Amino acid sequence: MQITSEQRHDDGVLERAFTLGETPGTLWTPGENVGSGPLPLVLMSHNNGLPMADPRLTARARYTAARGYAVATIDAADCGDRPRTAAHERARADLRRAMEAGEPVDELFESLVGPMVENAVPEWLAVLDALLALPGIHGPVGYSGGWAALGIRLAAVEPRIVAAGFFAGGYVPRAQREEARRLTIPLLFLLQWDDTGNPRQRALDLFDSFGGEQKTLHANVGGHTGTPWFELEDGCRFLDRHLKEGGAAA
Amino acid sequence: MQITSEQRHDDGVLERAFTLGETPGTLWTPGENVGSGPLPLVLMSHNNGLPMADPRLTARARYTAARGYAVATIDAADCGDRPRTAAHERARADLRRAMEAGEPVDELFESLVGPMVENAVPEWLAVLDALLALPGIHGPVGYSGGWAALGIRLAAVEPRIVAAGFFAGGYVPRAQREEARRLTIPLLFLLQWDDTGNPRQRALDLFDSFGGEQKTLHANVGGHTGTPWFELEDGCRFLDRHLKEGGAAA
Repeated sequence: MQITSEQRHDDGVLERAFTLGETPGTLWTPGENVGSGPLPLVLMSHNNGLPMADPRLTARARYTAARGYAVATIDAADCGDRPRTAAHERARADLRRAMEAGEPVDELFESLVGPMVENAVPEWLAVLDALLALPGIHGPVGYSGGWAALGIRLAAVEPRIVAAGFFAGGYVPRAQREEARRLTIPLLFLLQWDDTGNPRQRALDLFDSFGGEQKTLHANVGGHTGTPWFELEDGCRFLDRHLKEGGAAA
Repeated sequence: MQITSEQRHDDGVLERAFTLGETPGTLWTPGENVGSGPLPLVLMSHNNGLPMADPRLTARARYTAARGYAVATIDAADCGDRPRTAAHERARADLRRAMEAGEPVDELFESLVGPMVENAVPEWLAVLDALLALPGIHGPVGYSGGWAALGIRLAAVEPRIVAAGFFAGGYVPRAQREEARRLTIPLLFLLQWDDTGNPRQRALDLFDSFGGEQKTLHANVGGHTGTPWFELEDGCRFLDRHLKEGGAAA
């Protein structure tokens, strides 16, 4: 893992850009004044079509880091600003044409997002290993992400992930809908009630399908980008309960 | 309003039993060390069949009071330990018979709960006036309750109620389902996902129907009485945002 740049923000949070092989990423850690000892790690993803530099992601990441977490994100293959494969570009173009023509899009989403999840997971896991090898960062690990399908797969294959917050906002491939049934870690599932691009019933069905005994749904009025600010606090308290010592009793 | 007894708890909370006419009630206020100045008021109701002395209600009330609120509850007509009218007893018996026979019960619930709401509201409003006349208590007022139908009606007729937390756990009469559409105050709506006595879709439909732009649904795995402890904290933070000065920015 190579640190390529670093920047200290006013709130004390240190932001470091890194690369691991072909994978570019960002790591945020809190200022010196937040607690002591090793930091729990949060993997924070974004809608797979948006770059990791998107201001909504970086604001969430800095807020979370300031609460006492190491927070990391990457642009995986075909995500963000990474060069896209020809197969990926074709799938995107097919999807766009079908949407414009008003044709069914589920199978096209499946063809687009399914491989993205498959390709992203090894990169996220390699970064996870590299981050946990850094001094001052330790498990357990949480996932907090706008890309629910990725989080479902990561949590399914990576036992160091002990809690996950998902945003219900995109297509979840069949494989991840199946994996969701077997997920038993604590979950916080965030839904925008009037998200026109994200059928509400499908999101409620996904919430229903998760296998665990500790799952919570938060739904708020408004469209895809209208999540109220207090959900960021709620999300951190959820992580506190499951990733910090004594968090469950705090 | 006559104070009939008082008790200081270990957490500093002062619990006072009172009567106002025929209405028995309880008022909880925090110890001296919580803030200064007048306290916002929370009306806290319970499932209409349970007495105000039910331990789950008193635990919620004391926790909320310790966070800096005056919290009050009453046993309204036909609720809790109050003597029940003959009409009420008949409606309960009819409902029980129909449930045992596996017959449809919606109309019987309507006949039972509709009049309970009608009869409870004037008592709650009289108590609200009397409480706000006490030194050290002021508006704005919040509602936090296991009896959603009562809260919908109270919020519909009483503009001093500026925020409400509802538990989705009982029959909501037609009149209150209509009133819900016109409610625009901020709402927190709490649902137990596997509450067998409370059809999930009906609760989701009620949430959907509320007219406001600031409404949040929290749903958790489990049955009617399985609400996790952290929802009590979340409920207080919701009240903080809307009833305390600077709460929205805190």
